[in-house]
Formats: sequence, C-alpha cells, structure tokens
Amino acid sequence: MTSPRTITVLGSTGSIGTQTVDILSRHGERYVVNFLTCNTRVDDLAEQVRRIRPRGVAIREEWAWKRFRELCPDFTGPVLLGEEGLCEAAAHADNDVVMSAMVGFSGVVPTMAAIRAGHVIGLANKETLVSAGDIMTAAARAYGATLIAVDSEHSAILQCMVGERRADIETFIITASGGPFRSYDMESLHGVTAAQALRHPNWSMGAKITIDSATLMNKGFEVIEARWLFDLPSSRIDVVVHPQSIIHSMVQFIDGSVKAQMGIPTMLVPIQYALTYPAREPLDIPRMDLASIGALTFESADRERFPCLQLAYDVLDEGGSAACIANAANEVAVAAFLDGRIGFMDIPACISTTLHHMERLAHPSLDDIVATDAAARRYATEHCSRLQHR
Amino acid sequence: MTSPRTITVLGSTGSIGTQTVDILSRHGERYVVNFLTCNTRVDDLAEQVRRIRPRGVAIREEWAWKRFRELCPDFTGPVLLGEEGLCEAAAHADNDVVMSAMVGFSGVVPTMAAIRAGHVIGLANKETLVSAGDIMTAAARAYGATLIAVDSEHSAILQCMVGERRADIETFIITASGGPFRSYDMESLHGVTAAQALRHPNWSMGAKITIDSATLMNKGFEVIEARWLFDLPSSRIDVVVHPQSIIHSMVQFIDGSVKAQMGIPTMLVPIQYALTYPAREPLDIPRMDLASIGALTFESADRERFPCLQLAYDVLDEGGSAACIANAANEVAVAAFLDGRIGFMDIPACISTTLHHMERLAHPSLDDIVATDAAARRYATEHCSRLQHR
Repeated sequence: MTSPRTITVLGSTGSIGTQTVDILSRHGERYVVNFLTCNTRVDDLAEQVRRIRPRGVAIREEWAWKRFRELCPDFTGPVLLGEEGLCEAAAHADNDVVMSAMVGFSGVVPTMAAIRAGHVIGLANKETLVSAGDIMTAAARAYGATLIAVDSEHSAILQCMVGERRADIETFIITASGGPFRSYDMESLHGVTAAQALRHPNWSMGAKITIDSATLMNKGFEVIEARWLFDLPSSRIDVVVHPQSIIHSMVQFIDGSVKAQMGIPTMLVPIQYALTYPAREPLDIPRMDLASIGALTFESADRERFPCLQLAYDVLDEGGSAACIANAANEVAVAAFLDGRIGFMDIPACISTTLHHMERLAHPSLDDIVATDAAARRYATEHCSRLQHR
Repeated sequence: MTSPRTITVLGSTGSIGTQTVDILSRHGERYVVNFLTCNTRVDDLAEQVRRIRPRGVAIREEWAWKRFRELCPDFTGPVLLGEEGLCEAAAHADNDVVMSAMVGFSGVVPTMAAIRAGHVIGLANKETLVSAGDIMTAAARAYGATLIAVDSEHSAILQCMVGERRADIETFIITASGGPFRSYDMESLHGVTAAQALRHPNWSMGAKITIDSATLMNKGFEVIEARWLFDLPSSRIDVVVHPQSIIHSMVQFIDGSVKAQMGIPTMLVPIQYALTYPAREPLDIPRMDLASIGALTFESADRERFPCLQLAYDVLDEGGSAACIANAANEVAVAAFLDGRIGFMDIPACISTTLHHMERLAHPSLDDIVATDAAARRYATEHCSRLQHR
C-alpha cells in the first residue's frame, strides 16, 4: 500500500483484538492506530497503549475507565467512556478500517455506528450479523460502508470471490473442524464437560467461540453470516467437516469449478486481509506444507448429533428475529455450560425452548433486536436456572 | 455472455480438440464455430463438420485434404490446405478465441499466426511454450494477444490469480497425480511397459501426454509453461504429488494465504474457462463431493526417481534453446517407448544425452527453434535406434 491506513479496534483486548494489535505492532509503518476500545480489561488495554500508542481509547465501564486513568496518567489522547464513547471511536472520521472484534451482542451498537459513518469494517463480531443481518447489511448499503468478514471461513469465501462475477457463484462450502466431539455418539455427547470442550483441536480461541465450535453452533452462525455478507440463500450454503482446518472454506461456481482458500490455521491471515483488502501485505507466518501434512480429510456434517447446526438453518430460513433469539439463548446457555451449570446437550435444548416460547417479529428494527436479545436472555437464563435446580 | 463468441479450433480431432467440439456442440447458442483444423484425421473432422457446421476447415496433409473433399462433397465453406491453411484459419479476422489444441511441436507455427493476429488463444499445446516460451510470450505482448492456458494446472493458477495483484503472488504449487508408477522404486521403473504407463489413474488423455504424465515430464513442462505464462521464476514454482487430482493447482500469496482450484478431474472445465474467461458459463458436469471423496493426499515429488522433472527445471534455468531440445528429444523417446523400442528409464536418458550433444543457442529466433527442434529429433532418433539395436 502506498500510504498507511488508520485503524480503530473495537474490543482490542479480546482474542481477535489482541491478534489485530499484534499485526499493527509488527507493521507499524503500514498503519496508524486511531482508537483501541475495551469493556473492562483496562490492564491489558494499558499495556497495548504503551506498546502501540493509539491516538485515543474508549472504555465501556466507568470503574474501568477510572482505573485506566490511574494506569496511564500520562496518556494525553481522548479517553472516551461508555457505549457512547465506543460509538464515537467507531464512527471517528479518521478511521480507514474499523476492526469490530467485540464478543457477543454488545458489539452491535458500536458496529452500527461505524456502518453509519460509512467506514470499511472488519467484522469479527459474528453476533452482529447473526442477530441483525438484514438490518446491518441494509444499513451498510445505505451508508456506503463495506463489511469484510474476519472469520477465517468468510475471509476464505471473500478471497475466492475476488475477480469473479456474483452471477457465476453456485454454492459456498464452509468447512468445519467438527470440534473435539466430532466422532462422539449421542450418549457420549450428553456427558461431555466444559474442560473437554475447551480443548479445540486446531484453533486457539476465546472460550465462548470454542464451545460454539464444539456444538457446531459457530458453524451455524457462519452459515447465517455468509447469507447476509454475500447474499446467497441458505440452500446454496453447505457445511463439510474437515478436521485439519487447512481448507478454510470454498466457493463452487456454475461451471463446476471450486476455489478453496487454504493455509495453516491462524487468524492473523484473515485479520490482516481485512486491513489490506483487496490487496495483500507480507505476513511472516509458517507456510502450509501439504507434503508434510499428508492428508486432508472430509466428512458430512451431522445435524442430528449437532442440532445447533440445524437450528441455525431453521432460524435463517424463518428470518425476522428468530436468529437473534437463538444467538441470545446460545450465549446464555454457553455461559451456563462453561460454569458447569448445564450439560452440553442442554445448549441446543435451551435454544429450542427459548425459540419455542418467545414471540417473533417478522421485520424487527434495531431497537426491536436489542429488546428481543434482552428478553431472550432473560428467558434462557430462567430456563438454565430451572435445569440447574432439577 | 451477451453475444456468442466466434471460435476456431486448431487440432479439433485430438484429445483436447474433441472435448472443445463437445462444449461447442452442447452450447451452440453461445458460440459460432469458425474453423476446425486437423493434420490427417479427416474422417473425424468430417463427422465434426456434420455435427457443428463450422464456417471452414483447414487440413495439413494433401492426401487428407483430398479425402475430406470426397467425404464432404457438399461442404461449401473454405477448405484450406497445409501449414499455410492452418495459419490462415488461426489468424482469421473473425476469431474471438483460437483454441490451440494441436499435439507436439507442430502447433508452434499456427499458434504464432494466431498470436500475430492479436487473438485470445486457449493454449492446450504446451510444446509451444516449452520450446519457444520467451518468443511466444514476447510476441503475445507485442501483438496484444492473450494466452490462456488450457492445462488443468495452469487454468487453476489463472483462476486463483483473478482479482489478485501480481506483486502479491509468492509461489505456484502445481499438483501432479504422480502417474501410475508413483510408488515404484528405481529398479521397477526400469521394467515398466507402455501398456502399464497408459493406464493413467485419473485422466483420460492422449497416449503421448499419458507417458509424459508417468515420467513427470508433463509436470516438468508445466513448470516451464507456468514460468512463461505467468512470468514467475522457477525457484517460485513448486510441484507436489496429489494422487486424487482433485486440487488442480494452487497459488500461495505473500501473506501465507493459499488459493486452490478444485473439482472432479475433467478437461471440460479448463477448456470452457478458456472460451469464457474471465466470466464463467454453466457446465453440466458432476459436482465435487469432498465428503464422498474422503481424503486428499499429498507427497513430495521425487526428482531422483523421476529425472524428467529435474531435467525440466535444469533446461528452464539454462534458458535459450535447451527446453526446445528437451521437448524434441522427449517426443522422439516417448514414441520409441510407445513402440516398445526403448525402456521407460531410457526416456530421461535420451533427453540427457541429446541435451549433452546438441549445440545451444542463448537467444534463438523462431526459425532457430524450428531448426533446433528438427536437429534434436534427428539426434534423439539415432540415439533411440542405437539403444534398440544394443
């Protein structure tokens, strides 16, 4: 690139956020760091501020905001507070790319602020598109914002699509590692623990997404996300289990040709690609060596043993607020599972029950989505509590 | 596409030619068939003329040209004769795409005629680029011609390159089936027969290219071809053995990302892609099903057991007329092997010996290449004859 790009990272202390900061710190000459933001992890934020010297920061919680002042008394840039502060950082006029790396539904409002500012947005926050896909993509069109997926799967699809005509695309084939319980039968799945689920075979990720990977809910969300990002119906989005996670996803074209994007499993590639798209920049990571890897294997994705995947297709086909309900219920259920309060197969059960009991809106506004999310969380929390006290 | 494309097929009765005619006949509304040409197979040509009604034909041998007149007395279009006739068809002003599908070195002169006419050329004739790569590509630049590879490997590379910046390309990874003798030790390789070599595991091809596939000479030629088509040095072109032939080749980028083009093994995809590039058109072939395939495997390409591959890198690095000599010697040696006159490991030995004895030109003209080709054939023929009478 000819001139450095100005980057803001929403959620810089999370899993994707820290890797984004890693890329920014490795290649300081290519990037200007505008804002870093976090909810509460100000110790990590302070360390990042010392390392890559952003122009400003934004912190959601007031106690954390006060603590940052104590940690970095010499920081002279703006220190913004609350969701308003996050939104101001997201919408800042200097941003070339906003990396939206906040976990869960909390990322929706700041991401929308970046969309309304017409920015290029690296979207690592999949809940944004899962819960409010049509709203976000319609807003992106209206405000001239560009949404670039940072999931390895959607980055793979985007990389396979460059230079191709939209009309020539037939299907997406999203790969799934299958998680640690890929070969478990139904009975064994009922007994697995959070500790087992957190041992993801290929990717080192946050706890929430690791559990979503074990249930295949993560893959289901990626199907929903792909539908919104690339405007392809669910019937043309397939999932195939590929335990080595070397092929990150594929695009099949109308002539039967398939393009795949591959590489060693690392989020650094999709993160950097979002920052440099449609160009690339050098990245010093180990290269894929297929002769050493030896074999890439593939299996069908089983929607019976992994009902979260089927639920994702169901809520996508239903539309409206259904996916938002599923996402909220899933977030609550995964937290309960990580706490040891409910079992592994209670996660899809909690989503199903919450979907069954919640009222649906066919054409929700963003406020409706926020309200639906909160209501679904309340219902799912009560449901998990009932399960716990059984 | 909005309007039909006008296509001429040089070598329409060969393996790639008949498959090109198959695509043209399946999708008559998309294409106008300008000329079909052949060297001698006029019975096949007459059948093609009846089936897809080209505007004209060109036939290299005079006896065959006379026979065509007998076979198709009612054909009212031009029936051109000799290399001049082939060149006239290749350079015809109406051509949108010229499919250069002639086997061996005989395709060089007609292909050059198409280049000088500034056409888009589907290049299935790899000897053209192997023997005279710098001359052909320099001519293509000078006359504004576009060379599109029709090998599945180079088509894969081209498909992976669309939409990417040249500067972002790091390496090409060309896949090789490894041929039927992939796992043979050196001793066994000495004893293999033409009948064994002709049993190619994945592709149904002509006899010459099937032997080249078994020796890995074909793969070596593809390395040379890739160097000229895409202007990447040999040090950045790797070969990996992939027995299933599902991944047709890969491009690795400077950020460590790799793009692969995949699909069931069929030449119909790269042939049609050359006709429709950079767009695609529907093609009714079976879709790749990775869950059914189960595993894609990879091994290093062994340049000791398959010395033809090393020879290809050597002549590419030497430059000048060396690759032309290797190609000519290989064509002679393969013919002798198919006739049962020499052994399998005599093929690389014949190429080495011919290279060792022939004078080299650092900057050959096309006439020099034609003369070098003829001289190398004479030497290699004598060499094979000596081997035969040992």
